[in-house]
Amino acid sequence: MEDIYRERTYGAETIGYGDKPGIVVVDFQTGFTDPQYPLAGAPLVARAVDNTARLLDVARRAGVPVVCCYTAYASVRDMPHWKVAAVREQFIHGHPCTELDPRIYDASYDVPLCKTGASIFFQTPVTSYFAKERVDTVIVTGCVTSGCVRASIIDSFSHGYRTMVPEDCVGDHEEGPHRDNLRDVGRRYADIVDADGVIEFIETWRKKNA
Amino acid sequence: MEDIYRERTYGAETIGYGDKPGIVVVDFQTGFTDPQYPLAGAPLVARAVDNTARLLDVARRAGVPVVCCYTAYASVRDMPHWKVAAVREQFIHGHPCTELDPRIYDASYDVPLCKTGASIFFQTPVTSYFAKERVDTVIVTGCVTSGCVRASIIDSFSHGYRTMVPEDCVGDHEEGPHRDNLRDVGRRYADIVDADGVIEFIETWRKKNA
Amino acid sequence: MEDIYRERTYGAETIGYGDKPGIVVVDFQTGFTDPQYPLAGAPLVARAVDNTARLLDVARRAGVPVVCCYTAYASVRDMPHWKVAAVREQFIHGHPCTELDPRIYDASYDVPLCKTGASIFFQTPVTSYFAKERVDTVIVTGCVTSGCVRASIIDSFSHGYRTMVPEDCVGDHEEGPHRDNLRDVGRRYADIVDADGVIEFIETWRKKNA
Amino acid sequence: MEDIYRERTYGAETIGYGDKPGIVVVDFQTGFTDPQYPLAGAPLVARAVDNTARLLDVARRAGVPVVCCYTAYASVRDMPHWKVAAVREQFIHGHPCTELDPRIYDASYDVPLCKTGASIFFQTPVTSYFAKERVDTVIVTGCVTSGCVRASIIDSFSHGYRTMVPEDCVGDHEEGPHRDNLRDVGRRYADIVDADGVIEFIETWRKKNA
Repeated sequence: MEDIYRERTYGAETIGYGDKPGIVVVDFQTGFTDPQYPLAGAPLVARAVDNTARLLDVARRAGVPVVCCYTAYASVRDMPHWKVAAVREQFIHGHPCTELDPRIYDASYDVPLCKTGASIFFQTPVTSYFAKERVDTVIVTGCVTSGCVRASIIDSFSHGYRTMVPEDCVGDHEEGPHRDNLRDVGRRYADIVDADGVIEFIETWRKKNA
Repeated sequence: MEDIYRERTYGAETIGYGDKPGIVVVDFQTGFTDPQYPLAGAPLVARAVDNTARLLDVARRAGVPVVCCYTAYASVRDMPHWKVAAVREQFIHGHPCTELDPRIYDASYDVPLCKTGASIFFQTPVTSYFAKERVDTVIVTGCVTSGCVRASIIDSFSHGYRTMVPEDCVGDHEEGPHRDNLRDVGRRYADIVDADGVIEFIETWRKKNA
Repeated sequence: MEDIYRERTYGAETIGYGDKPGIVVVDFQTGFTDPQYPLAGAPLVARAVDNTARLLDVARRAGVPVVCCYTAYASVRDMPHWKVAAVREQFIHGHPCTELDPRIYDASYDVPLCKTGASIFFQTPVTSYFAKERVDTVIVTGCVTSGCVRASIIDSFSHGYRTMVPEDCVGDHEEGPHRDNLRDVGRRYADIVDADGVIEFIETWRKKNA
Repeated sequence: MEDIYRERTYGAETIGYGDKPGIVVVDFQTGFTDPQYPLAGAPLVARAVDNTARLLDVARRAGVPVVCCYTAYASVRDMPHWKVAAVREQFIHGHPCTELDPRIYDASYDVPLCKTGASIFFQTPVTSYFAKERVDTVIVTGCVTSGCVRASIIDSFSHGYRTMVPEDCVGDHEEGPHRDNLRDVGRRYADIVDADGVIEFIETWRKKNA
């Protein structure tokens, strides 16, 4: 099934880690992580929160830049044309569903951002922070794989970064779209890895730079 | 299979056309449309070229802004970390595979662009041209659905446009990823339509504005 | 003194208003408008606040989109290399000097933004909101003329907007740099007008669209 | 005269060089450098071409990334609202005034770009190339100081780079606006240096990294 892409030279290279990692955490706001909200309740997202929390713990101790975003608007008027009713109705400044999940957000370390597009890089200052820090390798975590995570992976690639996606740190409502999107980006833009692999890279990087 | 997304309020709205269309044509360069090149030869892409040519013919007569992009770099050094060998080896300024397909590009009317990321909007002046023209509705055409087209749809949405994707004007190497990506974006960001529907809209719009 | 620029065809055109205005309000945060802070106390800025408040009152009643930004960071680490000590020390999330001046900000109408660069358009969603609203004419107000206002005017032009700068709605620490910058942008990118002229345009526009 | 800015903490810091330089060359196209064109003929620009050529010679031998841009459009339709007649009439794809001056452009080394806004960073891939290269220090050269150079300096700062402006590598039609703009940016965003100083830094950097 994948043969035609292989034949046409997709997936011919592995990217590999560079010299300085940075981590982006996409939309782990309670609207996606707290089962009381209509967009929450996915087991793959719960798994991704746990693994990302574990990864961030290591990353912060190593001094790796971390950016956490949530999605929110002043009102429907300044919102793009979302087809998702729960976003239109609840992703409004001040609504509790826009709060970052405390399991993944550390206000004393992370840079928090409000984003308005799909990608964490879209019209946000992530690249400026990462330029100052000389980041060349971006670890993408968060939700939803077939939505804002896919968008963030594409942008990370387009911005020139080595893009690493720990499969167990991103989550979706269902396994199908989760896998379809990792397949598409793994052929073109990013290496698909796992939390343990990223943690090992960060530990090694930390010792080298100590 | 789609139920869980529906339940979680995805696809709850239709976007609809606005007051002023603009068309983006993604990567219909010979590297994808001329079978002599390794990335070319897909029947869905051939179909998309034909339908897009038909659509553009109507659009130009109606005065609709049209932007056509190709992907190219000075060398591998200034290229993002592509995993596609043919892109790394051939998408270089001056290589014939970077020429826009004459079936879809009209040098006397269209705005041509060289892009370097996945999306036609990424670090290109499309939005500035469209702002001057007061475009609020973007028709996305081109290839590949699971690559640069998907990226362009996401950005069109994030930039605030009503985003319309005529299914028969975008193409992929295989039916599977083509459909998977239209499914993902149709739930969130864009209306999936067809060439005939867009042509009808443009004809009506043209008469109204005559 | 201006002759050489005239001779070289600068300032050869007037831009004029378009079909749909939008207003950006740059950095009218208390750090610049409340004399208790080191960057505040400029009479030209006080004048600009008064005139902008008057203009915004009319604009909101006419339904014109309004975006108000302030500048703030999580810490010095994620801040660009500012040479202004007061910015480095005080423009931090939660510091009272980052609050929008209540004389110009209406939380029930305006879209508020945190920006991190000089321009209100830099890595912010202003253009996406304005694309949705079909804005083609941007009125630039705020402070400081020789800093973030100059940057915002340049970007407004580059984004394809007709750019109008009411001279009495922008302010600086001193008259000299205020005038120097209006001279530079008036030759190239923007029409220099005044608050009364913009108000008159908006009143006329409102009646036409009623 | 500068006292009020000093008092208000402007210019309180020097930025200094970082770990990896990159050079941007703004609009040294014949339209500005060949006296046959209406925008050309300024002695400060001629001086800047000479010094930049000297600087680039050293930079290329040291492996420093170099990006050279020119400004051009498909037609007046896709152009922002320029008030400069010569730009509106001549800065069109294919017109000889859009060719990069051979004294500063080396097609075998530099990355060439067409830009459409004022800043070399505006909707162009400079930052993506520099992210891949881990550039943290940007040297801004080119013309015109009070126009596209000023715009490029602001953006370089906003993107998080240490921004260095060799005064003798940027030029304007007149001394007055040249100095006014260096004064404004030197207080806020950039260190004002000279070609010899940058060359010395690059030579030292090259030996350290050899």
